[in-house]
Amino acid sequence: MSEIKTPIILVNFKTYAEATGEKAIKLAEMAEKASVETGVCIGVAPQFSDIAIIAKKVSIPVFAQHIDPIKYGSFTGHVLPESIKCAGAIGTLINHSERRLKLADIDAAITRAREVGLISVVCTNNTSVSASAAALKPNMIAVEPPELIGTGIPVSKAKPEVVTSTVEAVRKIDPDVVVLCGAGITSGEDVAAAIKLGTKGVLVASGIVKAKDPYKVMLEFAEAILKT
Amino acid sequence: MSEIKTPIILVNFKTYAEATGEKAIKLAEMAEKASVETGVCIGVAPQFSDIAIIAKKVSIPVFAQHIDPIKYGSFTGHVLPESIKCAGAIGTLINHSERRLKLADIDAAITRAREVGLISVVCTNNTSVSASAAALKPNMIAVEPPELIGTGIPVSKAKPEVVTSTVEAVRKIDPDVVVLCGAGITSGEDVAAAIKLGTKGVLVASGIVKAKDPYKVMLEFAEAILKT
Amino acid sequence: MSEIKTPIILVNFKTYAEATGEKAIKLAEMAEKASVETGVCIGVAPQFSDIAIIAKKVSIPVFAQHIDPIKYGSFTGHVLPESIKCAGAIGTLINHSERRLKLADIDAAITRAREVGLISVVCTNNTSVSASAAALKPNMIAVEPPELIGTGIPVSKAKPEVVTSTVEAVRKIDPDVVVLCGAGITSGEDVAAAIKLGTKGVLVASGIVKAKDPYKVMLEFAEAILKT
Amino acid sequence: MSEIKTPIILVNFKTYAEATGEKAIKLAEMAEKASVETGVCIGVAPQFSDIAIIAKKVSIPVFAQHIDPIKYGSFTGHVLPESIKCAGAIGTLINHSERRLKLADIDAAITRAREVGLISVVCTNNTSVSASAAALKPNMIAVEPPELIGTGIPVSKAKPEVVTSTVEAVRKIDPDVVVLCGAGITSGEDVAAAIKLGTKGVLVASGIVKAKDPYKVMLEFAEAILKT
Repeated sequence: MSEIKTPIILVNFKTYAEATGEKAIKLAEMAEKASVETGVCIGVAPQFSDIAIIAKKVSIPVFAQHIDPIKYGSFTGHVLPESIKCAGAIGTLINHSERRLKLADIDAAITRAREVGLISVVCTNNTSVSASAAALKPNMIAVEPPELIGTGIPVSKAKPEVVTSTVEAVRKIDPDVVVLCGAGITSGEDVAAAIKLGTKGVLVASGIVKAKDPYKVMLEFAEAILKT
Repeated sequence: MSEIKTPIILVNFKTYAEATGEKAIKLAEMAEKASVETGVCIGVAPQFSDIAIIAKKVSIPVFAQHIDPIKYGSFTGHVLPESIKCAGAIGTLINHSERRLKLADIDAAITRAREVGLISVVCTNNTSVSASAAALKPNMIAVEPPELIGTGIPVSKAKPEVVTSTVEAVRKIDPDVVVLCGAGITSGEDVAAAIKLGTKGVLVASGIVKAKDPYKVMLEFAEAILKT
Repeated sequence: MSEIKTPIILVNFKTYAEATGEKAIKLAEMAEKASVETGVCIGVAPQFSDIAIIAKKVSIPVFAQHIDPIKYGSFTGHVLPESIKCAGAIGTLINHSERRLKLADIDAAITRAREVGLISVVCTNNTSVSASAAALKPNMIAVEPPELIGTGIPVSKAKPEVVTSTVEAVRKIDPDVVVLCGAGITSGEDVAAAIKLGTKGVLVASGIVKAKDPYKVMLEFAEAILKT
Repeated sequence: MSEIKTPIILVNFKTYAEATGEKAIKLAEMAEKASVETGVCIGVAPQFSDIAIIAKKVSIPVFAQHIDPIKYGSFTGHVLPESIKCAGAIGTLINHSERRLKLADIDAAITRAREVGLISVVCTNNTSVSASAAALKPNMIAVEPPELIGTGIPVSKAKPEVVTSTVEAVRKIDPDVVVLCGAGITSGEDVAAAIKLGTKGVLVASGIVKAKDPYKVMLEFAEAILKT
């Protein structure tokens, strides 16, 4: 486990074949190597069943992809925040566009994350939802226009105004909330653009996981951050 | 149909036997009578299939209990905002505790309500969620601690701080958003307390619908508003 | 209101612009005219808020597009089976591919439909799900491969084996359950094929609602049934 | 990992404090010891993040509590069947009453379980839903009247007819599907009753996990099976 710092590159492993089981471990080790080499914080968000092993093997921040807003009890098949923490994660995504939650559940999940000591990264789809999420006081917000996810068209190019207006709207509601951006990020240039637009890092998935050489792309992303 | 004004008493018919079909029409007519008699705005939120007839029979504001964040298209079994408007409703509840929505869907539903000219009343369960909802710029927010709904224990007595802190939090985010409160309201005294705590009215269900004499209770509520 | 008989053409109005409000009434009137003219049973499934007016205006079977598996009570924003019956519907779709339900809720919704006297038409996506639904003893099952819905490619042509194996599987589990088929049906030929494959009718939406001349298409469908 | 055989005692760890992280490992080790000692098959269903470590430590069958009906891809926060298999589970619960699924998703989840080689145990709430689930050809069905879960009132006593009619209904639809029963089971007597009613074992949670001496209860359950 390791401390988190910004700017951060947060790699969402989704349920990609390239990031499940043994391959998830290797990808996390690459992320660790790229982080050590560049000094840039790189976090990974593997699947639930891979968290424990990865958190033991690497000393970079490990995130869950989701938690349920529940406590110990009768919640078969749900994701208990304590179980995630216990497995070695230091934070969690909440409300990813592929796992949207009800408003009251996002509020409760952020509260539960805070209670057990997990960093909360709430995913949002536009500026108004980002402002709305900021009012719930998560640690971070990752704005990702869903129509750009997986396209290779970076939000920083296709919709820079979504990023800048989100940064501004979130700052107005709660300046302590860190803003990341995501969707379509595949190059160091995209990462640099995201930082210049006022974010503190990127949430990225296929751009790294499905790259021919993920390690090389992670290095490129980290170096882009160092140059900004 | 009629203009809405505040303070308002908004009566949620839920799926109560006392407020379905013919009985829904009678209840709406009582609300109209009480409104005419006192000059206080009383709105009703009947079930979807009762909206059209009620909107034709009475000249008080009629609300839907829910809309889906959809447009014309292939959405079998969903509630199209246009269909609600077309049936004569002037507004709609969104995200009632018995029909919670995903954050992105609340945002989209408010937008759709605005597009078709429906007044949006977003229900919330606590202060942080109210602040969050306010950032989405609905017309109104109705804060109702779910644990008090249907209890007869008014939020204005049991948790007055939830009401005052909601009024304050919403004002800070967007002073144009009107705050109502609900849950457990059964007497004129409760309504007066709600107004004194800074709200512009109440969202009430069983307190009126399941009263022995709903008309009398509506009068009592309206008169309490007149006295504040 | 009217008796239902098979073969049946059941027209799902979805939330199409061409089938909302006034246009829904006109479409239902066309269906009535086509039914009277040909003697073939044509049912319509309009949106919730249009049911009451349509059921008053026409004497053909009116269905809801969905019901919730609830009783009278605190279910804001839900669709009470009694409210649908009360508005004049004689039946309801359940589990349409655009409004999928949990298994236990389909079971409960069928039970509730039976209790209030609504004909239940459970939509399914393949043969095994059709067999599964048949075990719950609904009145009808409408099998619709979701990938064909709205395509104009009829299931009776693209996947005739889905239809025949569904007819057989349902018969084995409960021969009293009537099988319809849907998805991609746009011509009398498609309807005739559906009947020949062993179904007792079709569930159709865009093929009629979005046709240039819906009345003509309804006549064509009905005549195809008469010829089989 | 180990072969599964019937009769089986399947212990659902839910998200109980007594069955999370280190405590989950100890409980699984107790189950293994009781299984070795008696020769009765005892399986465990821990939380997702505990599966990998438990599957490495013990040689009894490990189950997931849920899988999503998905393939490799963009499904952030979901539970990929392959990830569960990869972590060492040999089977999974599907549609537990605390994690109900849509009918089409149960069908797809069973198919996915079959594809990756996971034993599917579909939970059901009554006889008709059990028959319905049987038509989907899972490996096992565990019938649990939800109103008895966690009560200590065993289904075999409170509603024996639900168990016998489920056994019969499932046999009629597919005699290869194994029937378990659950809810309220706390003693060897309850387990014996379940077997006598025609089931091949029990699904149990609080009766073991929250017992003062879980190991003793597991022994008692296993011995009850040996005596029947």
